[in-house]
This record gives sequence, structure tokens and C-alpha cells, in this order.
Amino acid sequence: MTLQELGEDRLVEKLTRGLHRSHIVIAGPGDDCAVLRATDSSNLLLLKTDCIVEAVHFDREARTGAVGWKAMARPLSDFAAMSGVPEFALVTLIAPGKTPQRWVTGLYRGLQKAADMFSVVIVGGETSSTAGPAIVSVSVSGWAEPNRWLSRTGGKSGDEIFVTGRLGGSRAGHHLRFVPRIAESRWLTAHFNVHAMIDLSDGLGADLPRLARASGLDYELEETAVPRNRACSIEQAISDGEDYELLFAIAPGESERLQQRWRRQFPKLPLTRIGRLISNPKTAKRRLRGGYVHFT
Amino acid sequence: MTLQELGEDRLVEKLTRGLHRSHIVIAGPGDDCAVLRATDSSNLLLLKTDCIVEAVHFDREARTGAVGWKAMARPLSDFAAMSGVPEFALVTLIAPGKTPQRWVTGLYRGLQKAADMFSVVIVGGETSSTAGPAIVSVSVSGWAEPNRWLSRTGGKSGDEIFVTGRLGGSRAGHHLRFVPRIAESRWLTAHFNVHAMIDLSDGLGADLPRLARASGLDYELEETAVPRNRACSIEQAISDGEDYELLFAIAPGESERLQQRWRRQFPKLPLTRIGRLISNPKTAKRRLRGGYVHFT
Repeated sequence: MTLQELGEDRLVEKLTRGLHRSHIVIAGPGDDCAVLRATDSSNLLLLKTDCIVEAVHFDREARTGAVGWKAMARPLSDFAAMSGVPEFALVTLIAPGKTPQRWVTGLYRGLQKAADMFSVVIVGGETSSTAGPAIVSVSVSGWAEPNRWLSRTGGKSGDEIFVTGRLGGSRAGHHLRFVPRIAESRWLTAHFNVHAMIDLSDGLGADLPRLARASGLDYELEETAVPRNRACSIEQAISDGEDYELLFAIAPGESERLQQRWRRQFPKLPLTRIGRLISNPKTAKRRLRGGYVHFT
Repeated sequence: MTLQELGEDRLVEKLTRGLHRSHIVIAGPGDDCAVLRATDSSNLLLLKTDCIVEAVHFDREARTGAVGWKAMARPLSDFAAMSGVPEFALVTLIAPGKTPQRWVTGLYRGLQKAADMFSVVIVGGETSSTAGPAIVSVSVSGWAEPNRWLSRTGGKSGDEIFVTGRLGGSRAGHHLRFVPRIAESRWLTAHFNVHAMIDLSDGLGADLPRLARASGLDYELEETAVPRNRACSIEQAISDGEDYELLFAIAPGESERLQQRWRRQFPKLPLTRIGRLISNPKTAKRRLRGGYVHFT
């Protein structure tokens, strides 16, 4: 059965029947807005929206569950970047009327699986038809403690730059099944004074300069130190993008203790020092080659 | 200049430079998430997302400012439906790389104008390219008092049904310049015990049955009483959709006082009694002809 045959009311009913509920959701899908218990007002409200477009962020042939996973995991990776805690998600599906219902069902299974992993509740959304490619947009709200959230702007000259995981080659599959580094990010800010952080979505070549610029600094990168996925060149590790690993800056004095404790806490996930932030206004506009360029 | 020539970083920089700031926005566009002061935690958090698709919700020839206005006003109309107060918006723009930059600039002017009218702050968003039609998706967060928010579910048997404004013929222009009934909705819940409310987006023929069903009731509609826009038939007033007027249910005892006070408060906006809610489980599945059907 296609979406056109099913109609919107029945589609929404089918999709929302399978969603998990929570006692903090007072009115969820099916009403005009989602109504939720607000976070403790001593916390900050965090909002993020992100979308994936067929033929840009996923192929028509990709497993639909993996497409749903990716659509949810991308904005959650931004929460990781800020050391925030995601709570609620709204899902917008824009798809042609001829889309098979089972594609949508699979998509929602993937969305729900990623949401469940981080105790995020899907509280509503929107559907629309289109004559173009399918699009899944996910908006997430959550919170962070005022003294704990991180941005890209706090880096200091001399800070060492660390990256989690291995980079490059994401298009082979990682981009559809990565795990947002929320647990790692929350652990970092619970135990260390991290100065600035970003998640690597457009690739080290785009995101490292962004973090440095946002902090008003330049950077030195030890290219050979960049941790690479199997069969990836340094160039690929820097340029491919969609790694969804954490990149952060921390005072050099914390470096040793961080690496020791990290190995005990996350023995399966590498943490690698790949460079440092430096003050050098003359070269502050220098750019790494590569990184994903939008609107091509 | 097209979006492709401009590139995403410069596009985001241009768009966000013009946005209005607020002291409750701690980190806005340009960071991974928007960071905001949370509402008083005695209030409820309201979330809504909505999207408009070229050739479905607007024509390529429509004035871009009006397209932006509509994209923002639609989710705000859902806040009106629940008597909530919108606060923050995230804007997602999905457009082909060949889109002229001035189209996007005009779009943002319209988005900002609608946001300003209701003191809503645009705190972030997302851009992506597409091979298909342009899409603008807006997610809004806000709040409502626990004893004041309204849903579709609270209607009681015998309630009178009122509608604001005049219905039908929206495609002639109203759908691009309607004003979300937030002021009217907040006034209603400040002074009257409204039982259930919805905004008319898909047309009376779809939304009145929705409100009745959500309240577990049936309805009687006095078709000839339906306030119509000039040159509209009853059929059109019921079926056209995109009226973005309020439809609500209130105890018959409140009816007279409501109409008197409404005329003094909103002398330019008609308020019309068009029917009532009834208990009649046998006909509860009866449907009005018309109303907008999605995925056609």
C-alpha cells in the first residue's frame, strides 16, 4: 500500500501507535502541539533540527531502518557536541504519495531505535507529500546544566586537540549506523574541564577550522597522527566527513590524566591527540583541504 | 548569485546576521544546538514542527516574503490552537543549489516578520540542497500554563461550537498572509472556560470531525450559519482549508457573555456559533464532505 492510498490521518495513526510513551509527555502525537513537562528551569533549553535528503544523505537503496537511525542520530550527535541531554523529538516526513507504506514503517523503526538508545521520546511531527526526493527532518529538544554545556568558542591558545574514534570512509556504511557520542561527551564534562567541542559531521578538514575560528584561534594539525579507518588515506580521513566523532580542546596539563582515564572508561574507543590550538592571527584564515561542501 | 555559488557557511552567515537576538538566547545560530533559558518549570513545554513544500503549499511564483510568512505562521497557528505562547523557532531550508540568493533573503524577511509579530526568536536551523522542490520547515518551542492549555479532547456534549473569522477561498491569497490567532486564543483562555479548540488548517470539513472525535462525541453543524468569505459557497467554506481560524467548544451558558465581550475586544473579527457537540455513538463516524486530503 502506498502513502497516497493510506491517506494522512491513517498514516499518522499507524506511525504514532508504535511510539513509546513517557510520563513526562502530557499530549503527544495527534494534537496540535506536543505538551511536555518542562526541564528544571535552572537548566538551559537546547534545541536542534537536522534533515536528511534522499540522494544527498542516503541512497534510495539504503536499508530504511538505517535511514531512520541516521535521521535521528544526526541531531543527537549535535547534543553530544554540546554535552547536552536530548529529551524530545519531532519527526517530519516529506515523501512522494507513491512511497510504499513498508518503507515508512521501516523508517520509523530506525528512528525509534535510535531514540530509545538515548531515552528520547518522539512526541510528534508532520507529514507532507512532495514531487521530489524523500526527506526526513528531526527536531530535538533537551537540556544542559549552565556550568556544563560546551560550544565551539571556548578554546584557548595551547589547548591540545583530541578526536574520538577513527576517521574516513564513512560512506562505506558508518554514516548509516554511527552512535552519537553522548555518553562519552557527558563523561568528559563530568570529569574534565573541556574548553571547546564540536562533532565531526562535515569532516575534520571543515570542522577543525570551524572550532579554531569560533575560538578566535588557529591550529596545528599532526596529519600523520589522525586516526584512520582501515584502507583510508590521510586525505580521506580529513575530507570524507560524516564521522560523527567528537573533536575537543583541553588544557595540555589535563592531557595525560585524560588519556589514562579514557582508556579505562572506553577501552574500545580510541582517543587520539591530533594537534593543538595556537594564536596566529596571520594564518587564521588558512583552510584545510577537503571537508564536505554543501549546495554542490 | 545562487546558493551553490555562495556555499553553506556563507549562506548561514548571511542569514543569521539579520536575525534578531534576545537576552534569553545564550547560543544561537552557528553553534551545534541553540542554547536558551528554560521556561519557568511550573509551565509546560510546547513543541510543534510544520513544513511547506513548493507546488503543494505555495507556488513558485508566490512572493518569497509571503512564503516565509506562511512557513512561520503555520506552526504559530498550532500554538494558538492550544492557547500556548511560542518562544523559539528553528528554520530548515531545503532548496536546489540553483536557487537565487535573493529568493532566500526574501524568504527570511517573511519568516522574521511573522516571528517578530509574536516575539518569537529564530535561534537556529539547517540548510540542505535537493534535486526536488524547495521546502521550508519550521520547528517552534514555547510554553503554556498547566491550567490553561487546550486540546481537541475536552469537548462536552451540548457544547456550542464557535469559529473565528470567515472561511473559504483561502487559495486566493489568505493562505499566504493569515495572522495566527494567538492573541484571540490567549484572551479566550484568560476570560472563558473553553473546553476544546483546534485551528482550521485542513478545512472545517476535516477539522470539526477531528475535534468531535477527539472529544469522543459527534456534532451538529448549521451549514447556513458558517461565515463565508466573499464569493464562497458553503461547500467551499467547508472544504477549501487553510483558513487558520480557531474552532472551539464552550458550554452553552457562556455563549451570550462570550459574544458580547468578543465584539468589544475584537470588533473587526467575527465570532460565529455554527453548531454544537452531541453524544451519538451511532453516527460518530459520519464525516463531512471535503477538507484537504494529504498525499494526493
